[in-house]
Amino acid sequence: MTDPIDLTTSSSTATTLPAFAGRHIGPSEADVARMLEAIGRSSLDDLASTAVPAAIRATGSIDIVPADSEYAVVEELRALADRNTVLTPMIGLGYYGTITPLVIQRNVLENPAWYTAYTPYQPEISQGRLEALLNFQTVVADLTGLTTAGASLLDEATAAAEAMTLMRRASKVASDAVLLVDEAVFPQTLAVMRTRALPLGIDLVVADLTDVTTAEGLSEAAGGRPVFGVIVQYPDLHGRLRDHRALAESAHAAGALVTAAADLMALTLATAPGEWGADIAVGTTQRFGVPLGFGGPHAGYMSVRSGLERTLPGRLVGVSVDATGAPAYRLALQTREQHIRREKATSNICTAQVLLAVMASMYAVYHGPRGLRAIALRIHAHREALVAALRAGGVDVLDGAGFDTLSARVEGRADDVVAAAVAEGVNLWRHDGDTVLVSVDETTYLDDLVAVCRAFGVDAPTNVPVAEPNWGEGLDRTSGYLTHPVFSSHHSETSMLRYLRRLSDRDFALDRGMIPLGSCTMKLNATTEMLAVTWPEFASLHPFAPADQTEGIRHLIAELSQWLCDVTGYDAVSLQPNAGSQGELAGLLAIAAYHRSQGDEERTICLIPSSAHGTNAASAVMAGMKVVVVATDPATGNVDLLDLKTKVEEHRDALAAIMVTYPSTHGVFEDTITELCAMVHDAGGQVYVDGANLNALVGLAQPGRFGADVSHLNLHKTFCIPHGGGGPGVGPVACREHLAPFLPNHPLAPEAGPETGVGPVSAAPYGSAGILPISWAYVRLMGGAGLRRATEVAVLNANYIAARLREHYPVLYSGEDGLVAHECILDIRPLTKQTGVTVDDIAKRLIDYGFHAPTMSFPVAGTLMVEPTESEDTAELDRFCDAMIAIRGEIDAAGASGNVAGSVLRGAPHTAQSLAGEWDVEYSREEAAFPAGVDPLAKYWPPVRRIDGAYGDRHLVCSCPPPEAFED
Amino acid sequence: MTDPIDLTTSSSTATTLPAFAGRHIGPSEADVARMLEAIGRSSLDDLASTAVPAAIRATGSIDIVPADSEYAVVEELRALADRNTVLTPMIGLGYYGTITPLVIQRNVLENPAWYTAYTPYQPEISQGRLEALLNFQTVVADLTGLTTAGASLLDEATAAAEAMTLMRRASKVASDAVLLVDEAVFPQTLAVMRTRALPLGIDLVVADLTDVTTAEGLSEAAGGRPVFGVIVQYPDLHGRLRDHRALAESAHAAGALVTAAADLMALTLATAPGEWGADIAVGTTQRFGVPLGFGGPHAGYMSVRSGLERTLPGRLVGVSVDATGAPAYRLALQTREQHIRREKATSNICTAQVLLAVMASMYAVYHGPRGLRAIALRIHAHREALVAALRAGGVDVLDGAGFDTLSARVEGRADDVVAAAVAEGVNLWRHDGDTVLVSVDETTYLDDLVAVCRAFGVDAPTNVPVAEPNWGEGLDRTSGYLTHPVFSSHHSETSMLRYLRRLSDRDFALDRGMIPLGSCTMKLNATTEMLAVTWPEFASLHPFAPADQTEGIRHLIAELSQWLCDVTGYDAVSLQPNAGSQGELAGLLAIAAYHRSQGDEERTICLIPSSAHGTNAASAVMAGMKVVVVATDPATGNVDLLDLKTKVEEHRDALAAIMVTYPSTHGVFEDTITELCAMVHDAGGQVYVDGANLNALVGLAQPGRFGADVSHLNLHKTFCIPHGGGGPGVGPVACREHLAPFLPNHPLAPEAGPETGVGPVSAAPYGSAGILPISWAYVRLMGGAGLRRATEVAVLNANYIAARLREHYPVLYSGEDGLVAHECILDIRPLTKQTGVTVDDIAKRLIDYGFHAPTMSFPVAGTLMVEPTESEDTAELDRFCDAMIAIRGEIDAAGASGNVAGSVLRGAPHTAQSLAGEWDVEYSREEAAFPAGVDPLAKYWPPVRRIDGAYGDRHLVCSCPPPEAFED
Repeated sequence: MTDPIDLTTSSSTATTLPAFAGRHIGPSEADVARMLEAIGRSSLDDLASTAVPAAIRATGSIDIVPADSEYAVVEELRALADRNTVLTPMIGLGYYGTITPLVIQRNVLENPAWYTAYTPYQPEISQGRLEALLNFQTVVADLTGLTTAGASLLDEATAAAEAMTLMRRASKVASDAVLLVDEAVFPQTLAVMRTRALPLGIDLVVADLTDVTTAEGLSEAAGGRPVFGVIVQYPDLHGRLRDHRALAESAHAAGALVTAAADLMALTLATAPGEWGADIAVGTTQRFGVPLGFGGPHAGYMSVRSGLERTLPGRLVGVSVDATGAPAYRLALQTREQHIRREKATSNICTAQVLLAVMASMYAVYHGPRGLRAIALRIHAHREALVAALRAGGVDVLDGAGFDTLSARVEGRADDVVAAAVAEGVNLWRHDGDTVLVSVDETTYLDDLVAVCRAFGVDAPTNVPVAEPNWGEGLDRTSGYLTHPVFSSHHSETSMLRYLRRLSDRDFALDRGMIPLGSCTMKLNATTEMLAVTWPEFASLHPFAPADQTEGIRHLIAELSQWLCDVTGYDAVSLQPNAGSQGELAGLLAIAAYHRSQGDEERTICLIPSSAHGTNAASAVMAGMKVVVVATDPATGNVDLLDLKTKVEEHRDALAAIMVTYPSTHGVFEDTITELCAMVHDAGGQVYVDGANLNALVGLAQPGRFGADVSHLNLHKTFCIPHGGGGPGVGPVACREHLAPFLPNHPLAPEAGPETGVGPVSAAPYGSAGILPISWAYVRLMGGAGLRRATEVAVLNANYIAARLREHYPVLYSGEDGLVAHECILDIRPLTKQTGVTVDDIAKRLIDYGFHAPTMSFPVAGTLMVEPTESEDTAELDRFCDAMIAIRGEIDAAGASGNVAGSVLRGAPHTAQSLAGEWDVEYSREEAAFPAGVDPLAKYWPPVRRIDGAYGDRHLVCSCPPPEAFED
Repeated sequence: MTDPIDLTTSSSTATTLPAFAGRHIGPSEADVARMLEAIGRSSLDDLASTAVPAAIRATGSIDIVPADSEYAVVEELRALADRNTVLTPMIGLGYYGTITPLVIQRNVLENPAWYTAYTPYQPEISQGRLEALLNFQTVVADLTGLTTAGASLLDEATAAAEAMTLMRRASKVASDAVLLVDEAVFPQTLAVMRTRALPLGIDLVVADLTDVTTAEGLSEAAGGRPVFGVIVQYPDLHGRLRDHRALAESAHAAGALVTAAADLMALTLATAPGEWGADIAVGTTQRFGVPLGFGGPHAGYMSVRSGLERTLPGRLVGVSVDATGAPAYRLALQTREQHIRREKATSNICTAQVLLAVMASMYAVYHGPRGLRAIALRIHAHREALVAALRAGGVDVLDGAGFDTLSARVEGRADDVVAAAVAEGVNLWRHDGDTVLVSVDETTYLDDLVAVCRAFGVDAPTNVPVAEPNWGEGLDRTSGYLTHPVFSSHHSETSMLRYLRRLSDRDFALDRGMIPLGSCTMKLNATTEMLAVTWPEFASLHPFAPADQTEGIRHLIAELSQWLCDVTGYDAVSLQPNAGSQGELAGLLAIAAYHRSQGDEERTICLIPSSAHGTNAASAVMAGMKVVVVATDPATGNVDLLDLKTKVEEHRDALAAIMVTYPSTHGVFEDTITELCAMVHDAGGQVYVDGANLNALVGLAQPGRFGADVSHLNLHKTFCIPHGGGGPGVGPVACREHLAPFLPNHPLAPEAGPETGVGPVSAAPYGSAGILPISWAYVRLMGGAGLRRATEVAVLNANYIAARLREHYPVLYSGEDGLVAHECILDIRPLTKQTGVTVDDIAKRLIDYGFHAPTMSFPVAGTLMVEPTESEDTAELDRFCDAMIAIRGEIDAAGASGNVAGSVLRGAPHTAQSLAGEWDVEYSREEAAFPAGVDPLAKYWPPVRRIDGAYGDRHLVCSCPPPEAFED
């Protein structure tokens, strides 16, 4: 579908742009002209040329032709969708057919109020999703029988890897102890643990732990080595539900911890891991209503027994109180987190899978304990009916209690059976030449069993009697779960719909106003980009479905990969990392493997500027590197080249890499970047450019061309995947040719990475493949010219804000010409010193004005970093600037009065409820809630006053509080 | 896909019900038991048996087997969708391919905040959609060049029929004057006008008006008869854009009015009808982003010149002020409306097409004047390129200026060309054996022109040069349009998204809380029901597409029709009427035609109880009947059988019909219904049972079996089509066998109705076919047992409310056992008399408590009619009852204080803004905004205080006010 007609109607500049650019980019032509004038630049070209150092500026344009319209892109996506064939997915291995309740699909996954929200760092404006996450934690804690669950991890395999390192930290046994892995753990989980264990020097021993019932047996299984941790799959790879009590006792006796990789659906019927002695449970919540999506995104989970909660990786939501003493949610124990602990971090987990965790939690809310149990009983009944039919037909089915999966032995016929099943419309799993695994799920009907039986050549069952499983003591679940009223209150669709609306109304997301978060790039997530995500042809693909059934998505992945290379100037890309942090790790692992391949085993030093994102250091540690910090120039924010030179010299022979962010985390295009790259390369090191700020580069400069060797990108920033309230993220790693052989690969999908790769960093071959249509559509719609234009306007918008606010707040760093890149840092420290008003006060006061705060105290404490992105139009930029200027007035007034504690700033944010009550402060209700510029018809009301985070950390509560807690 | 397993898990009663019943019906089993106890009934059966008179009670159950799950229904719908084939729709005739901007599709059409809203009778909680409708009116008024446009009509053909009667009323020429219709009006428009003209005794004369330029010419065209109105299509059926200035002048000289049926897209380039002399413009806004949907729903429009605004049929939104003097929107000039004017009404239009009008208005907001013009230029360019190619290939294309349609003469080959086009994937229109019409639209690409040229056997164009049309003076548009800032402010998707969110946040819809509107049945509109509406296989079908391309939707229509017969006990149904009012008209036309067929020409009296819905009388008048009002017993609310007997006797020979609502509009199952039916039948009359209250009958009694001859149903009430903020409605007419030959039919779709039918009552053969999947899915999900259960719980919920509120407010009518049907009337008159507090005060005060008011003053002035429906759970019912009881306390207090004017009731509703300002009333802010029971975390804030409707009627403003109006 091509059309020679130009659809655009605006000025001559615009006629070279696709129509969609006018939808994605906020400012109109006229606004652009006005803003250019305000910052004293003659054109966007002029601005870009001045802002971006000549040495790195791209000369040509990106050679990607835009589609002519959103309509055309939807047609193309439909054609790609038609090239996928969705068979009934009975492969299992942690991925199951599930029914997403449509009320949840439409009102969460397809609702911008949920999917455009940011990570809940500003808890006062995030109470809705924090409540949903608390529900999630309660679901996981209840079902696993452990006290504390986090607010989701990336997937089951990485959660298992996190459990591995948690056990290593928490176990007191010798440092040469091993991790003992049951042989019936999912293969991708084992593979990811191996990838992660290697750089940390952790040895894995894989053994059949079925008969380990004593400490001696444990030691024997470990080849005589001490054991710090044990991990089992529950139910296991072969579908068996095994009683691990004795194993757990043996492990504890040996000083080891025990992790169960457990299926939450099975746990509605089976004894909880916490009840048989597991210290940790990990897994995925995919089958709680989250589409397969060819592998993701799904919310992984981890829960731990009492005593381990402060060592949990990832986000943890807890209950605290607001300034009035009312209960309020916020992220708990944040000091554990990677962005604060940096090189002392024990995990680099940054993004969670919030949107998917919300969905899974709502699935549990909607079905409730009885509904979940009924679903599980139905699944189990289908499994039992199939087992009986197969056995009756003479098939050798593995003995033992089972929930949803069976292992059938068919001497030499596995390939034939699997092929026959495909012909019947069903995918089974070929475990080996003699063994076929079959998993049933919520979507399985008798018809599917008939198809499977045909494939095996046996008579099919004619009915499916439902009965309580009778697995015996130690396996049957006797304890209750989901007893909190929230799990019994919203079983009608009307009630569910209102609950979802009520929660989302408490939150501030992009559908209400600007979220000017520096470094986080909260740009438009266009509906056209989101559209295909929920099409069954993409959403219902199993990650291990045969290649000939997944041509459409593979084509899309290949095309997107090529475009990302075109954009970045790199030669190869892997889309497997399902978060930026995982992309970082993958990039560093590639560097390490490259050095090893060159015989440079000793190169383990990673230089990191002090201004770097906290994850950088954490990832380096996980990649087995030693972090050496390079100073930054306090005046310019740039990397201190003298210090760099010193550090490079000092570590010349051990230098593995430098990790820098470009443009810098200070929002500046450093003109020394080429020099920096050269210096590191000369010393034999590799240059890792953190792609967090790629939004300022696309179309203007290519890291793969100006000296970098590898980068991770953030598709959820620059390439329009929504933040989802704190995930999903997608963090592809892109590199130059010499590193390409060391990108991630996958044991179950050879085509997903190089044979010489470093192993998988995510459970699924292509990570969060289900949301890649978003970025694909974005690039397809914008083309090279549109992408470049977006970057230019992002830079323009940031400079416009800097220009308007400069006289009210010092702009901390800027380049030679006084220009910033795509974000600017407002220095609040002088004001704080003068008046006592803090960045926190300004951030909370911005809520009253109807804004999400900019990034606080990163990269410099006491500052606010503002990134408007290209999607905000001039009216919204002005609304923000007006608010900031008005707040500056309030700061001056508070300073002059000497009563900051009683000021409107410290009182912020103000709830509607507070207006109705006693009013004993010096400022008026109107000043509090409707300061100048706030449109009463568009007022956002936070549901709580300022939250006391420390209180919650002292009184840790991480599952749903009783309703009484909310009574007055 | 069938499954012998019962998915339900609750008590034994529930096991006979489909799983979806538990989602659709609010109260759980335990709640049902508790409520039964509260009203003193032992079971739902007991309740139903007591409430429903034995004489009419159905003995068997409805023989519809439910699907086993929502998942299964979605699969079935997909299979039906696959049986439709979507070809490129180049048929035209008022239906065009259009691109729904996905941001609008997802955030309006697929967003419950928009689609579950009710008609904006409570303007304080409807400001968002009222603003959207005001935008709609502005679009129509601007583009047509007329001063006042209404807030949408049902479709172009019925709008033309309304224009016909408006012209008849407004013209002063003799009563035997005719309507002169240009021969190039769309055929379905002509047919609907004929249907509507016949019972009113209006004669239509169809003539070619091309050369009519004088009053004499006009008279000649009318065969010498006086002319009260002229109607032309602009551009016309053949695609010609004709200058009608002289025709309009001639008509005006003859005392006639002129209506243009005009294409809004064409009007962005062509002279506006108001500028060439039209008094009225009508048409459809479908091509402004509203999917074809096999014929609807789409928003029809009408605009009129100054002086005619008070005669406009349908809804009209205007600007007024609230209690603080701030501008506020509300429905204007309501005294014109049918529900007030009853038998004096000049139109029975009740429902509008609000959801679709909102979409069309947002399409204009999103594209703006420049964008719309660009789209129109592109369409025109494609038309011109096609014309040139056809002519170059020797095809005879009709001369003259044209916008999007061409008429090609192909001696005897029309069928071949159309067939060849189908083979190329394109539908064209066979006008006659020699003529093919081709319409291009927004979705047309060069590829489509190539396909058309292949079908004609000519060389295709290779490019499509865009140029300004040069139609000459009198046709080229020179005036501006859409100059209000709202049409230039939201062209980026981010801004559009926020505008949609902002507007919807102002409104109270079912996604926030109960809307207990008596007679309006605001039940759940489930997501599964809504799902298929936006699937292209349903959404993109042209209403005149060949039958072999529309098998799936036709199967769905046939199945739904059969189910509706099963439910109602009737023998035949027509789904064509696209609103309840049109169903009424169709039913009455069937009765009239039946009498005529029996030689009973004189039967023209229609008996209507005084308690009837206002539309009943208006429809009877439109059907050419004379209304005779039957008294109702003031004590019981029942039809006064003595008076009925008298009236029947009095009009025995002229008796055509009685129209009664059952259960009555008083919410009572009258046990005299069978007697009533017999009395009318004995006199030779027919019984029309208004199906408005069918929600209380389904599964319990069948009108087609207890004596009625015909009913209209409201799919948007009982069968889950959402109200959409005031439309779309769907009003099928169902009847017994003897009336079946007189159901509606359609000139362009013989299979859509009986050959002997009364003609079409809607533009499309199956009316609003695009939303029939909603009702189909509802019935499929619930089955007979589920539908019956829904009715029982609806009755239970109403009786529970009556029981809880009875001691606080008298329940006006109830049956023998003190039971009400599915709704109950609370009598406020005694309280008003005692205290001065009015139903209005209570309605507005309920807003402060977070509720939409019940129906006010219908059927009895000074009362509130409450219908909770089955979808509200007990918690929500209790929340409502608690609020009503608390308000009763407030009434008593206000009465005791003697200061009702200064009371919290009269001050209601209270905005958040009001809390922040001066507070000079006796009650506290907390009492105002957070009375007992209001959850501060779920508070709904109305955007304005109480609105002064009369002010707006005195100062009529019906298009967007300037932004300055909203400044403080």
